[in-house]
Amino acid sequence: MNRLSGIAASNGIAIAKAFRLEHPELNTEKKNVADAQAEIERFQGAVKQSIAELQIIKEKTAAEISAKEAAIFGAHLLVLEDPELIGPITDKINSDSVNAEFALKETSDMFINMFEAMDNEYMKERAADVRDVSTRVLAHLLGVKVQNPSLITDEVIVIADDLTPSDTVQLNPKYIKGFITDIGGRTSHSAILARTLEIPAIVGAKTALATIDNGTIVIIDGEQGDILIDPDDATLAEYKEKHEAYSRQKAEWAKLKNEATVTKDGVAVELGANIGTPKDLTGVLDNGGEAIGLYRTEFLYMGRDTFPTEEEQFDAYSAVLKGMEGKPTVVRTLDIGGDKELSYLDLPKELNPFLGLRAIRLCLEMPDMFRTQLRALLRASVHGNLKIMFPMIATLDEFRQAKALLKEEQAKLESQGVAVSDSIEVGIMVEIPSTAVMADTFAKEVDFFSIGTNDLIQYTMAADRMNEKVSYLYQPYNPAILRLVKTVIDASHKEGKWTGMCGEMAGDEIAIPILLGLGLDEFSMSASSILKARSQLSRLSKADMSAKVEHILGLATSQEVEDYVKSL
Amino acid sequence: MNRLSGIAASNGIAIAKAFRLEHPELNTEKKNVADAQAEIERFQGAVKQSIAELQIIKEKTAAEISAKEAAIFGAHLLVLEDPELIGPITDKINSDSVNAEFALKETSDMFINMFEAMDNEYMKERAADVRDVSTRVLAHLLGVKVQNPSLITDEVIVIADDLTPSDTVQLNPKYIKGFITDIGGRTSHSAILARTLEIPAIVGAKTALATIDNGTIVIIDGEQGDILIDPDDATLAEYKEKHEAYSRQKAEWAKLKNEATVTKDGVAVELGANIGTPKDLTGVLDNGGEAIGLYRTEFLYMGRDTFPTEEEQFDAYSAVLKGMEGKPTVVRTLDIGGDKELSYLDLPKELNPFLGLRAIRLCLEMPDMFRTQLRALLRASVHGNLKIMFPMIATLDEFRQAKALLKEEQAKLESQGVAVSDSIEVGIMVEIPSTAVMADTFAKEVDFFSIGTNDLIQYTMAADRMNEKVSYLYQPYNPAILRLVKTVIDASHKEGKWTGMCGEMAGDEIAIPILLGLGLDEFSMSASSILKARSQLSRLSKADMSAKVEHILGLATSQEVEDYVKSL
Repeated sequence: MNRLSGIAASNGIAIAKAFRLEHPELNTEKKNVADAQAEIERFQGAVKQSIAELQIIKEKTAAEISAKEAAIFGAHLLVLEDPELIGPITDKINSDSVNAEFALKETSDMFINMFEAMDNEYMKERAADVRDVSTRVLAHLLGVKVQNPSLITDEVIVIADDLTPSDTVQLNPKYIKGFITDIGGRTSHSAILARTLEIPAIVGAKTALATIDNGTIVIIDGEQGDILIDPDDATLAEYKEKHEAYSRQKAEWAKLKNEATVTKDGVAVELGANIGTPKDLTGVLDNGGEAIGLYRTEFLYMGRDTFPTEEEQFDAYSAVLKGMEGKPTVVRTLDIGGDKELSYLDLPKELNPFLGLRAIRLCLEMPDMFRTQLRALLRASVHGNLKIMFPMIATLDEFRQAKALLKEEQAKLESQGVAVSDSIEVGIMVEIPSTAVMADTFAKEVDFFSIGTNDLIQYTMAADRMNEKVSYLYQPYNPAILRLVKTVIDASHKEGKWTGMCGEMAGDEIAIPILLGLGLDEFSMSASSILKARSQLSRLSKADMSAKVEHILGLATSQEVEDYVKSL
Repeated sequence: MNRLSGIAASNGIAIAKAFRLEHPELNTEKKNVADAQAEIERFQGAVKQSIAELQIIKEKTAAEISAKEAAIFGAHLLVLEDPELIGPITDKINSDSVNAEFALKETSDMFINMFEAMDNEYMKERAADVRDVSTRVLAHLLGVKVQNPSLITDEVIVIADDLTPSDTVQLNPKYIKGFITDIGGRTSHSAILARTLEIPAIVGAKTALATIDNGTIVIIDGEQGDILIDPDDATLAEYKEKHEAYSRQKAEWAKLKNEATVTKDGVAVELGANIGTPKDLTGVLDNGGEAIGLYRTEFLYMGRDTFPTEEEQFDAYSAVLKGMEGKPTVVRTLDIGGDKELSYLDLPKELNPFLGLRAIRLCLEMPDMFRTQLRALLRASVHGNLKIMFPMIATLDEFRQAKALLKEEQAKLESQGVAVSDSIEVGIMVEIPSTAVMADTFAKEVDFFSIGTNDLIQYTMAADRMNEKVSYLYQPYNPAILRLVKTVIDASHKEGKWTGMCGEMAGDEIAIPILLGLGLDEFSMSASSILKARSQLSRLSKADMSAKVEHILGLATSQEVEDYVKSL
């Protein structure tokens, strides 16, 4: 038996055979060929094999996952039937008497570079399609096997360097019991996916691919970040018991679905969910969410060619508000820019997009776009308990400007006889250090705060959370972060307002006791974390944690905080 | 008479004729030519004219500015004599029967893209050379005049959209009385240049080029940001008087050169200078600097092909320490990465370099490079009053690691019998919000703080200070910044340590009274600002400003702070 450890990315125990998902190196060295015609036929053979394979994958994905996921392979088939790509390759083999691998690589690279240079989300996806297809044909030319995760029909744990978007779309949660990646952190794309699918996962394992053979039995403990390779019988028995205990625990948690969230000493707090689309409502209600603490509206704007109309937005917001049946629903206005682009919005390239024109900054620069969203929200407000939240507020001026636009649209609608709720709360995300420091002055004018820890941490530590090289500085438990959180909560309470949190940290087991002690009113997290958090909170005493907070805020490092909380 | 206003970038009054420095649009549309040979001759003619012109500019620059500045034109001449560039252009005219403009543009663009893609500082300069040369030849082909600022021999105020590096190298301070640019902010390259040259300047004027004709008399007031175009006699007389008053004021300030810096109520503070190379010492001493508050060592590493040796560094540090004759000298260890690259250090491209692997983060990742610098500093320490400062410290762990490396090198040197001063203070830059918030815990372990406001502001406001689109958020007077400054100063004093400031803000007229009230111990600024600051401080009462600070920290916006200080 061998052991590895990595970053615990998604809770639970999985025991299954390892499935190595590798992206092989394919040799495309230039060679001269004597018989160009024979080489062209070899190339066409590989194309035919690829088409046959793609058709199988497409059908399998449609049957077992969804038509939407299958569409990506439809796109791949179109690429292989495109004479604009295939023609130049056969021409090149013919005129230059070169091998098919080299002609394919040269031609597809040209298309990939061209598409990528277009700086448009849609064309970049085309580049990804050409890359995937070209790899598949190359593999057939070289007789190398390309792995198709969608063809997995055994229960396995996937081991990979990293999961590409075209890998993840193929993962069928019915068979994939968990996964391990060598790179990535807790907030990487694949880690978030694992939590959404509710399968255990470990990321940043560094040497899993180098260590684990195909078919070996592997255990992953997604809570501890432990990986056990080829376990002995005693270990296997131990983890089977842990797995069952975890299932029992989940069953226990499920009983809390319709309960209120109350601490051991009788203090009620609110547990909400972060959602991206009206479809996510089912998960919120199934997991006993008491509120939506963050509805990210940018998904409405993504994956399309034009801005969503006021009607489209109104429909989405109304659906969520109705579905929540009067429970608090915090809708964040458009947070685009930074790492999130829209194909139809031609934003200038920025040297440091995370410090650039994004979210409310962009909305105030494009007031017409912003007013459309505000009108849709105001009209939808009569269908539920709407709270409007502005993201990336850095100064009081920005909040005042945004609120003035809202009030203008409200007055217009009312003068047109359109009904608008008279109890909409208007608040802000606290995710920029200046706003946390100035929370006392903001608290006089906003109705609520919601702390966005993902950004607050990256700005406070001056470390890009997507950058591996400085990920050691992404420290949720750093006392600097906790002190800023305290400043915000205290400021809101002094003015009789409330503070929520909608970053990753709100659902974190170490952070929850501290946040309770600091007086946080609302915790908003992935729907799948709610029941566990409710269970944890029911075992904590608020009075007890409040008494310990002063000690925690006096600690010097993130590690000291973590050690202290674990020792409680 | 017409008026414009912009951002006051460099103090003083200038009155002179306008000189429009324009970068004309050059048409390079593709055209077919009947006689390719004649076209090649036309191209060669333009090359000859360009060579002749460059030789004149080169000689003039060498004679009137310096040999170093003239070298850039030597490089341009080499480009024009390079058959690798010229050959493909004449070939293209010949084989494609196209016009010279098109062939030149296509070919030079190819070279520019190739050089720029190389991601190496040296090759990027080559790209800039090719671009400049290509523009010059194109202009001759099209009969359009290219402006050569180095040929200016009249006293003028330069009006430009922006000043490129190849423009600025040609500006002769003997004739350039001031400049106005339509874009840029107070910390842009051209604004900093103006303060170094001590000529008045206004940046971000937006419509100066659109408004001001060549030869028009223009007045600029670099303190107020005012531009007066074609002034009437009364205005002219008024500003001549202001100009003289400013000269008298400078003469008054000069008398303070050998005075201590003491407030009206008898409190001494220290005024230091920020320097980049040992050459800058003259300016520090001429302006009565009492200390060096920031010696930026990265210039030692720039503009070369290899790391500076320990000996080279020892020589530079020793020269500065000796020159300061025992006055405090704060040396900042290497702050590279972010926007500062080294050609011989192949750092990965980062999506958000300002939030990436830079300064101390990079030094801790490359300990050998860092140890060399530390050894050079330790050995130089016997020649003066050395204080070592680590940049971009975000956590106590980083400080402890950096200090441990220093102590290790010190022990090694001492065991080798090398003399090291026993009174070196070791401190940190406070430029990351987490460090400001945690200043109390840092104060127990560091010997001093120096607040780096340029970065502290950009991280606290989450706004890239180089990005025009969000420059409105670069707010030195934002109460959030002032509160963090207070946190740092109070924490240091509680432990009997001192706090300095070495960002732009330390020399700012509005900020100085506030910083005095907050208890700042050392102000470090451009040498040219020291005497003015000494004069201002001598007219301020510390007790008075301390009493006003609480009110200031309770204000809600940057504008309220500015208005309040101006009202005092």
